[in-house]
Amino acid sequence: MKNLRIAAAQINTTVGDINGNVDLISKYIKKSQDYNVNIVAFPELSITGYPPEDLLLNDEYINANIQGLEKIKNKFRNILSLIGFVEKDDQNNKIYNSVAGLFNGNINFKYQKFFLPNYGVFDEKRYFSSGKIHEEIHLLDYMGIKIGVNICEDLWEKGPPDIIKTQTQNGAELIININSSPFEIGKNEKRIELLTSKSKENKCFSLYVNQVGGQDELVFDGGSMLSSPNGDIIANTKQFEENLLILDINIEEVRKLRKKNEQYSNNKVISWKIQLPNQEPYNQKKIGIIPSKNILKTEKIETIYKALLLGTRDYIHKSGFEKVLIAISGGIDSALVTVIANDSIGNKNVIGVNMPSRYSSESSISDSEILCRRLGVNLLNLPIEPAHISFEKILQRTFENTNKNVAEENIQSRIRGTIIMALANKFNYLVMVTGNKSEMATGYATLYGDMAGAFAVIKDIPKSMVYELSKYRNHIGPGSPIPETILQKEPSAELKANQLDSDSLPPYDQLDRIIEYYIEKKMGSNLILEKEKTELNGASKETIERITKSIDKNEYKRRQSPPGIKITSTSFGKDRRMPIASKWNR
Amino acid sequence: MKNLRIAAAQINTTVGDINGNVDLISKYIKKSQDYNVNIVAFPELSITGYPPEDLLLNDEYINANIQGLEKIKNKFRNILSLIGFVEKDDQNNKIYNSVAGLFNGNINFKYQKFFLPNYGVFDEKRYFSSGKIHEEIHLLDYMGIKIGVNICEDLWEKGPPDIIKTQTQNGAELIININSSPFEIGKNEKRIELLTSKSKENKCFSLYVNQVGGQDELVFDGGSMLSSPNGDIIANTKQFEENLLILDINIEEVRKLRKKNEQYSNNKVISWKIQLPNQEPYNQKKIGIIPSKNILKTEKIETIYKALLLGTRDYIHKSGFEKVLIAISGGIDSALVTVIANDSIGNKNVIGVNMPSRYSSESSISDSEILCRRLGVNLLNLPIEPAHISFEKILQRTFENTNKNVAEENIQSRIRGTIIMALANKFNYLVMVTGNKSEMATGYATLYGDMAGAFAVIKDIPKSMVYELSKYRNHIGPGSPIPETILQKEPSAELKANQLDSDSLPPYDQLDRIIEYYIEKKMGSNLILEKEKTELNGASKETIERITKSIDKNEYKRRQSPPGIKITSTSFGKDRRMPIASKWNR
Repeated sequence: MKNLRIAAAQINTTVGDINGNVDLISKYIKKSQDYNVNIVAFPELSITGYPPEDLLLNDEYINANIQGLEKIKNKFRNILSLIGFVEKDDQNNKIYNSVAGLFNGNINFKYQKFFLPNYGVFDEKRYFSSGKIHEEIHLLDYMGIKIGVNICEDLWEKGPPDIIKTQTQNGAELIININSSPFEIGKNEKRIELLTSKSKENKCFSLYVNQVGGQDELVFDGGSMLSSPNGDIIANTKQFEENLLILDINIEEVRKLRKKNEQYSNNKVISWKIQLPNQEPYNQKKIGIIPSKNILKTEKIETIYKALLLGTRDYIHKSGFEKVLIAISGGIDSALVTVIANDSIGNKNVIGVNMPSRYSSESSISDSEILCRRLGVNLLNLPIEPAHISFEKILQRTFENTNKNVAEENIQSRIRGTIIMALANKFNYLVMVTGNKSEMATGYATLYGDMAGAFAVIKDIPKSMVYELSKYRNHIGPGSPIPETILQKEPSAELKANQLDSDSLPPYDQLDRIIEYYIEKKMGSNLILEKEKTELNGASKETIERITKSIDKNEYKRRQSPPGIKITSTSFGKDRRMPIASKWNR
Repeated sequence: MKNLRIAAAQINTTVGDINGNVDLISKYIKKSQDYNVNIVAFPELSITGYPPEDLLLNDEYINANIQGLEKIKNKFRNILSLIGFVEKDDQNNKIYNSVAGLFNGNINFKYQKFFLPNYGVFDEKRYFSSGKIHEEIHLLDYMGIKIGVNICEDLWEKGPPDIIKTQTQNGAELIININSSPFEIGKNEKRIELLTSKSKENKCFSLYVNQVGGQDELVFDGGSMLSSPNGDIIANTKQFEENLLILDINIEEVRKLRKKNEQYSNNKVISWKIQLPNQEPYNQKKIGIIPSKNILKTEKIETIYKALLLGTRDYIHKSGFEKVLIAISGGIDSALVTVIANDSIGNKNVIGVNMPSRYSSESSISDSEILCRRLGVNLLNLPIEPAHISFEKILQRTFENTNKNVAEENIQSRIRGTIIMALANKFNYLVMVTGNKSEMATGYATLYGDMAGAFAVIKDIPKSMVYELSKYRNHIGPGSPIPETILQKEPSAELKANQLDSDSLPPYDQLDRIIEYYIEKKMGSNLILEKEKTELNGASKETIERITKSIDKNEYKRRQSPPGIKITSTSFGKDRRMPIASKWNR
């Protein structure tokens, strides 16, 4: 046998929903059978969803996942299904992040992930033991074609051991790498670069299988693909969508490239053989296969927007909600969040509420109305003045003879937080928070006020990118929902008369650079100053120190903020774990 | 030389405050010199504070820690100081959790932690590489006395390798184990058991050195001690206080116990030799030494109370605050929190605020007043009725024809949250939150309402233990601050007429057992039911499932709650990392 029909099932699983995941996997195996696929591969930990976090410490969860695998095992004939699951070693009280090869009612193959990521958003060493590739190398032998299977980080880590090299030098002609790899800007380009260079170096086909879908802070973007032994992408899938990528490969391409002396096998190799006495030659109709000269490419800003849509839809639905509520201020942040909600779950499921105060400008109100009218989103109007007055009365004596400060400003924001939560509690809405990364970093937001809500979709989007995304969305349509006046006006919190963001913050391009250097690149203020000196409108030493200090100081606020979607290399959340009580400040 | 004077410096460092920590360490070295101490040992990562979390990803932080060590190095003569610090390997881009032995201007010894905890609240594999004990064993030779130094988890892990066994079998006669080990119920007893059994098994003296102090969710309780080669505790320190434990040991005790054939050394041992040409014989005055028959013991409830006091004081001060504000309701939770604040930072630094609503009982107000009068705590009285009415007006049309639900109840709680935050913003108070573990678990609390604030001191204390602690504090004095009426009344949130906790929750003893089984013991509802069947007032299947589901469902609330002090084996926070969007429910 030289020809093989393989498939990557890029599916959207749900953490905790083992039965649902089992059904979804079964559906995709069935679909693969319909196209006479020989081998279908599913993402990392498809049975449990990823990341299951501390559910992995619950024995009943692990057992349910094993039962789920058993259920699938007995359902299908004559197709090999590679499925990510949690493997249990009761004797040694260990669990593994594993893949099982199911064939004709048996588990015909197993591989345990060797490299466990334990950085950034990943905590895999908290749960899993590392596989035993040093002791023995497990390869699949599918009618004489040798296949090396591995999991996510096993592809990325240089080693030793270099897993791909170990598997190919022991005979593997096709590498199947299953993943739950979350989106971040530029990640897909890195994956392509890595997969193609590894394929070329080791003269093998390489199938990359990734999941798709949102889970709390993470969006998995898919982007499953196949590289040829020459290091060319043969085909890839649309990102951010469920997909079954089906491909025919001819293993002769590998064998021609390799010289005899390059391949060897040793006695540490364990070959799991799959024999197909009655297999029909595969059907020639090729579904979902994209010619090698027509690789799908997505522009950076488009991928970000799609990540936000998918993350939003999945967070809402996987948390069991249907409708969302957004406090619409007339500013750019809430406008973008409203459009994202609209585009992800439809205008009928989005409710806006405008809560003007004595400091709200006329245009704030009218711009909110125009936005919602263009989208067809229902907008409530609940002026906060009566509550504002009542709090002033309650606090009058206590605040007598004090200087006005943020105390008075924040009251307005917290009144809005109270109203929006009352509506949410009453009508079972999920509240979407509108704060961006620049605000989250500097603490330019009111805890329990505009920070109140369940999901902060643009929490990892710096203000400058909020503008970019808004213009992008107006440009691609449908419609141009965000009024030009919103795009043009100077940002303001409108918590006192004539207030502008620029009163307390440096220009947003400066601010966003400092945030990127400090948060993502982990540079101290001295290094940032060096960098800023090379910019035309570089920030001053004083500005840099003021901003980095305010980033440190506001850790307590971020710790109480709702989750948002990771977009950059370092988002606020699991990605960045800082002490609250800390005296470090540079 | 057979006699050695050793000291454990049980100090309270601060994360991020490298200069402050260097000064503190220097002060304790000086103090040790005053008593002619030969070797003084400091806790794990004393220079950086523990846990430094993602500050460890910042190169400038690592460099500052190295500079801090250098500073100490050159300050002292004729005393060996063992200091926990972050060691850097620039070539391989790795860092280690290490201990350095400083003597007469040199680093005369180094050891890298081998076992890195990566469970519970610990994330050490996120940062550190593991030491190389497999390759070579580093021992200290102090005038012929062989010493094995190791760090925290190195004592706990069974291995292989068993670090203590490896070091003693290669000649170590004294083991020094430095720690940053956080408090939890029963932990100190486990440490004593472990240290003495290891000492006895390996016939060595063992010095256990732990830090003391609060850092975010953690309280380090100290409890530094020395075990004899027979497995007896020779002396220990008071927990929850800075302390310098000084002890004289005679190494002959070890040599007599050991048979010749039990000790050997091999060529993998690297001996770091300390020679003392001019050392005076040590002074006989023995400070801080407790006779072996008079070991300090602390009762369980006392240790918990002390942990809460220390954690509170340090969180407040290390965050740069002086005064705290507490919403006092007349219930047991806020009474206990007020007493804790009073006992930890003094009544002049505690401000109470009573915010009665139309549903508040007369006794709620008078009990709050009695409590504060007894403590000498200033109490503000700010009735919320005006704000309550104004929100009803604002929401009147929108809520028309709907059934009353938690929406109306929560408004009152959020008004209180708004007032308390306004006071905090105005007067720079730190707000202490009063919710207990039973509420945090079941979500019986209002997000942005009574959950609003910076520090939730009793977040890990179940309701039944809230009563225990309150009675204990009334018992030990000074005074009996908590009125008997508060201890006797039925718990109520007072958010609607005649509301009682028992309307929505099972009896607290049942509830707290279910929480312990589910959270700490990680048992599913089936297992819990088995357990409950053996209890006199065991919970029903329906109750158990209702509670475990509400625990799962309220993850989103806990994610936005302020930090509190870890007391049990599994607290809410870094200790328990659960997905928010999850369909798992058993």
